[in-house]
Amino acid sequence: MKRGFGSDNHSGISPEILESIIDANRDHALAYGDDEWCKRAEELFKKEFGESAKVYFVFNGTGANVLSIDLMCRSHEAVVCAETAHINVDECGAPQRITGCRLLTVKTVDGKLTPEGVKTQLHGFGFEHHSQPKAISISQPTELGTLYTKDEIKALAELAHSYGMYLHIDGARLANAAVAMECSFKELTTDLGVDVVSFGGTKNGLLMGESCVVLNDRLGEAAKYRRKQMGQLCSKMRFMAAQFIGYLEKGTWRRNAVHSNAMAQKLYQEVRKVKGVDVLYKVEANSVFAKLPRKVWQGLQKDYFFYDWNEDNDEVRWMCSFDTTEDDIMAFVAALKRRMAAIAE
Amino acid sequence: MKRGFGSDNHSGISPEILESIIDANRDHALAYGDDEWCKRAEELFKKEFGESAKVYFVFNGTGANVLSIDLMCRSHEAVVCAETAHINVDECGAPQRITGCRLLTVKTVDGKLTPEGVKTQLHGFGFEHHSQPKAISISQPTELGTLYTKDEIKALAELAHSYGMYLHIDGARLANAAVAMECSFKELTTDLGVDVVSFGGTKNGLLMGESCVVLNDRLGEAAKYRRKQMGQLCSKMRFMAAQFIGYLEKGTWRRNAVHSNAMAQKLYQEVRKVKGVDVLYKVEANSVFAKLPRKVWQGLQKDYFFYDWNEDNDEVRWMCSFDTTEDDIMAFVAALKRRMAAIAE
Amino acid sequence: MKRGFGSDNHSGISPEILESIIDANRDHALAYGDDEWCKRAEELFKKEFGESAKVYFVFNGTGANVLSIDLMCRSHEAVVCAETAHINVDECGAPQRITGCRLLTVKTVDGKLTPEGVKTQLHGFGFEHHSQPKAISISQPTELGTLYTKDEIKALAELAHSYGMYLHIDGARLANAAVAMECSFKELTTDLGVDVVSFGGTKNGLLMGESCVVLNDRLGEAAKYRRKQMGQLCSKMRFMAAQFIGYLEKGTWRRNAVHSNAMAQKLYQEVRKVKGVDVLYKVEANSVFAKLPRKVWQGLQKDYFFYDWNEDNDEVRWMCSFDTTEDDIMAFVAALKRRMAAIAE
Amino acid sequence: MKRGFGSDNHSGISPEILESIIDANRDHALAYGDDEWCKRAEELFKKEFGESAKVYFVFNGTGANVLSIDLMCRSHEAVVCAETAHINVDECGAPQRITGCRLLTVKTVDGKLTPEGVKTQLHGFGFEHHSQPKAISISQPTELGTLYTKDEIKALAELAHSYGMYLHIDGARLANAAVAMECSFKELTTDLGVDVVSFGGTKNGLLMGESCVVLNDRLGEAAKYRRKQMGQLCSKMRFMAAQFIGYLEKGTWRRNAVHSNAMAQKLYQEVRKVKGVDVLYKVEANSVFAKLPRKVWQGLQKDYFFYDWNEDNDEVRWMCSFDTTEDDIMAFVAALKRRMAAIAE
Repeated sequence: MKRGFGSDNHSGISPEILESIIDANRDHALAYGDDEWCKRAEELFKKEFGESAKVYFVFNGTGANVLSIDLMCRSHEAVVCAETAHINVDECGAPQRITGCRLLTVKTVDGKLTPEGVKTQLHGFGFEHHSQPKAISISQPTELGTLYTKDEIKALAELAHSYGMYLHIDGARLANAAVAMECSFKELTTDLGVDVVSFGGTKNGLLMGESCVVLNDRLGEAAKYRRKQMGQLCSKMRFMAAQFIGYLEKGTWRRNAVHSNAMAQKLYQEVRKVKGVDVLYKVEANSVFAKLPRKVWQGLQKDYFFYDWNEDNDEVRWMCSFDTTEDDIMAFVAALKRRMAAIAE
Repeated sequence: MKRGFGSDNHSGISPEILESIIDANRDHALAYGDDEWCKRAEELFKKEFGESAKVYFVFNGTGANVLSIDLMCRSHEAVVCAETAHINVDECGAPQRITGCRLLTVKTVDGKLTPEGVKTQLHGFGFEHHSQPKAISISQPTELGTLYTKDEIKALAELAHSYGMYLHIDGARLANAAVAMECSFKELTTDLGVDVVSFGGTKNGLLMGESCVVLNDRLGEAAKYRRKQMGQLCSKMRFMAAQFIGYLEKGTWRRNAVHSNAMAQKLYQEVRKVKGVDVLYKVEANSVFAKLPRKVWQGLQKDYFFYDWNEDNDEVRWMCSFDTTEDDIMAFVAALKRRMAAIAE
Repeated sequence: MKRGFGSDNHSGISPEILESIIDANRDHALAYGDDEWCKRAEELFKKEFGESAKVYFVFNGTGANVLSIDLMCRSHEAVVCAETAHINVDECGAPQRITGCRLLTVKTVDGKLTPEGVKTQLHGFGFEHHSQPKAISISQPTELGTLYTKDEIKALAELAHSYGMYLHIDGARLANAAVAMECSFKELTTDLGVDVVSFGGTKNGLLMGESCVVLNDRLGEAAKYRRKQMGQLCSKMRFMAAQFIGYLEKGTWRRNAVHSNAMAQKLYQEVRKVKGVDVLYKVEANSVFAKLPRKVWQGLQKDYFFYDWNEDNDEVRWMCSFDTTEDDIMAFVAALKRRMAAIAE
Repeated sequence: MKRGFGSDNHSGISPEILESIIDANRDHALAYGDDEWCKRAEELFKKEFGESAKVYFVFNGTGANVLSIDLMCRSHEAVVCAETAHINVDECGAPQRITGCRLLTVKTVDGKLTPEGVKTQLHGFGFEHHSQPKAISISQPTELGTLYTKDEIKALAELAHSYGMYLHIDGARLANAAVAMECSFKELTTDLGVDVVSFGGTKNGLLMGESCVVLNDRLGEAAKYRRKQMGQLCSKMRFMAAQFIGYLEKGTWRRNAVHSNAMAQKLYQEVRKVKGVDVLYKVEANSVFAKLPRKVWQGLQKDYFFYDWNEDNDEVRWMCSFDTTEDDIMAFVAALKRRMAAIAE
């Protein structure tokens, strides 16, 4: 399939990561995490997120997010999140089925929770008829490609803690946030008071590999059992650990994220010049959301794969990946322009 | 780590399978199963298991088994299985938590359910205080390395169907059974009336890849939603499909299973000659269970990694893998003999 | 405690219902529903709801609603309901934990779902990342004391069925709706295409007794097992059945509901005359919602128990019961007037 | 239905308890436990079980047992119990579905767990593939009508605590045990180190009422939310509390249990004289288990309702109740003798 702008998980394995897998393919290794790769990976996570960090590798984003919720909340407790949060709209009810918890959703302008928005859900404490709010979950970058500033995250962490609650980051694309904000993972999470992070790899060049990084040491006690019981414990774990070792040691995470962010900027700069195309949110990571005439976006989908985001409103999402090239973008923009011109006639 | 006899998932990726991954690493592909590799893999599964077969790739054995149970039973229903079944002893309660079902266990001599044994659990139908038996689950080969004959499986399928129940095979090592019995997967499952199969790949050379193969077309309707909700839907699914394509098309499954079975036979032939070592079950697939003096097996664990199976009884398990060599075996047997001799003095 | 306007479950047992309990207290009876009272009650439910009706007694409203959802939906499916629905706001997440389903909520003006509102949630069919909408749940009367007309219910039933979905009524106070609309239970449910009803008794004079009435005969197959597994199967069921027999045969349901509705009308007519008190919704059943000065309602709570409904907006709920008297209302209104006068000075 | 020996929940409401209900039926009372009856009942439970006791009323035995398990264990943990335990055989999988926990069952001779038996399940601690044993659950009296001595309970409590586990008593008939052993509830539970008790009332004269009594103050923190979420929170709770007040204050529990135990002794003394009838277990509470010719027990079931316990073995259960009379027993024994004589001819 031609390279398009459908999703960053439409791209394959980053060459360096593939090398890491190939390198790990020798001899025997203990299964389920008791191998030397896992030990090394665990140290690397401590280096990146701080000494308190304890990493639990899982298979996918659903696994990382559901395990994170499960560590923070029991079933009578609830997670406050944006209405647009991936855990709310794209998990087929996995959090509800697996953890039994409710999600208390808040409408947002740009995918970002604010303390004011969260507070609308902070009531009913001690009232047994009401699911007890116990965690706030934010996505960084958000599902709309926007970023929380460090101060905004810190404010949410403080709000959470003042209520005895926890702050979780769904960081499926955390690398894209870190490079955009020019800070380390630690500065972006641990230092701001974040309790648990779903740290992704798949969307930024791994074959398959996500993780639940527990920063608050009161939360991880049962994590290994909960992961196993959820079906998220990998047997040949060395190959997951090896990917993350490559990702972190070789700097792949940074190079790939810098590139996909830059490609999104390039795309943004080009499409904003096209009359009739409205870019919808601030382009801060590796996606561009735009509104454009139906005939144009539907036509363009014949040339390139991408998703309509809100069909009724003619909103679409264009996602850049570590393997997106400038040529891809210029060809795409040319096709867009041709289709815009065609309807103008 | 030195090659040992701990588990077939201590070995790495079979070279041909790694090639398949590398080959699939080009261009973009749709995520979550809508790619050309998945289509091709689905056809291959139909070829191997018959036209009714519908395959759902999952991450691991827990995922395959729990999804299988979930497709056969609702939470007030129950699965009859051997007390030694992996779903009973090694899943940290995943079937109970995720499906809500009870497992009704039956003691066995050699890990194999018999119709008589199953019937001890077939009561209480229509009685609302009793979990309603709805499925029989067997492992082929069993957790003790023994095999059901085709007639035995057929008898269990007929028993199940006569009660409106289903028959499931946990086939984490189904390839080892098929080569030992010199039959196709279809002859071993579909043709005998099996309804659902957990078909494994990881233990026989894949990086990571298991599957739930639905043979009874009344059972698969909700499978794709259930898989997603359980956190078992892979995003870059092409790499899972590609491994299974290699596995089935290149004959890797057969070559690897033939080899690991042969190595177990070799090991069996050698250790049975050692006085003081009792081989416990018929060696039919790729494992050897033995009873031997405590000092010997505990000493031997310093030379090689393997599991005690029942510490109190001095029973151990030696598992052969696709990469086990004759030299590995001869060196291992030599070490065993040395340690037997040492205690004889 | 003085009779107040807190809730219709603050009142006790209606005398006729207590008589029914006392009458049933003789000899032995089989437990768990196999007694003569249950048989007779089942016939009465068929008489009231039509021949297709199958009743399952449960302990409380949570039990009735959760069992209803459980019969309509599997965990990957979802229920569309009003944001104000009891199942959404007052069950401490019971539907999520017990059924695993998502609730898809819709904002409403007056607690009533409209087809347009419901349709905003009817998307993503066939898309495995999205919980599949499978039921619509409405409360009749609503949590805000308003009523759906028969045409409105019919329209929702038709919408549901056109999507292969079901319509559920949370009828904790269905008697109040039936008498207000001057129709039978059958005319209000079965004849309009409703599939399952939570039919309450406790709030209208029973000691304790609710029920799940299955009208769609495709839905009840596993009901008895599901009820048991949820912990909602009563052992001395004859006493629950006996209450419902009294309730339906003696006309208690009608007399009590006529009375509590009339009391709410009386209260409404009196308070609407009080300047500074705004009645918020149409008073159609046995509750009155009003907005009034904070000082007044907080002071009034010292005289009488009632709930603030939305503290921030100074909205309160006054609920009438089968044992509310005209004197209670006149005394309450006098107290209200005194407090209004006090702040006017 | 004629009084028989089917179950102690085939009897009705004890007259004094009915009086307590009638007395409580006045005025309004807050719902869900915030009323004066509940407060008084809570004090009475402290008096009976000690100051640490915190009582949570629930609807039935399923509710009491499942809530107890839920307070002791998370889903990756397990409960060790006798194979004959009610929670294992008679709950349609409620513990599994609602708590997600596994039950680890132990075969017993007479329904009683021993430390040796329990220890066979105390392994795999720290091993994430294995459900972690976290509680021991015993029934007192057992499902076979036998009693643990105080020393036996103490030994199990000490065993549990030495592993960081808890001890639970399913005391659906705890009153029968207490009177048989001539001790208080506190001496039978709290003083022996028991952590949680399911304390029943329904089988000994209540209309409907069970409870979860938390003795270990580390366990109750989330109890009120968990009870609500499980659908076990009663709205007109005063009527449940009032029954327990009557039960404890008026000595109904003792009188009724003394009587039903005495009736079982009487029955035992009579049937043991009948040749061909083998009494199976020590008769210590209110049930008699016997083995007798099939023709006889099947014939006798035409005269009286009672359950076969193990049909294949011709074992039956005869249960006495608070309302069983000596005449009932003599008539029953006469019928038994007639049928024995008939087959002897």
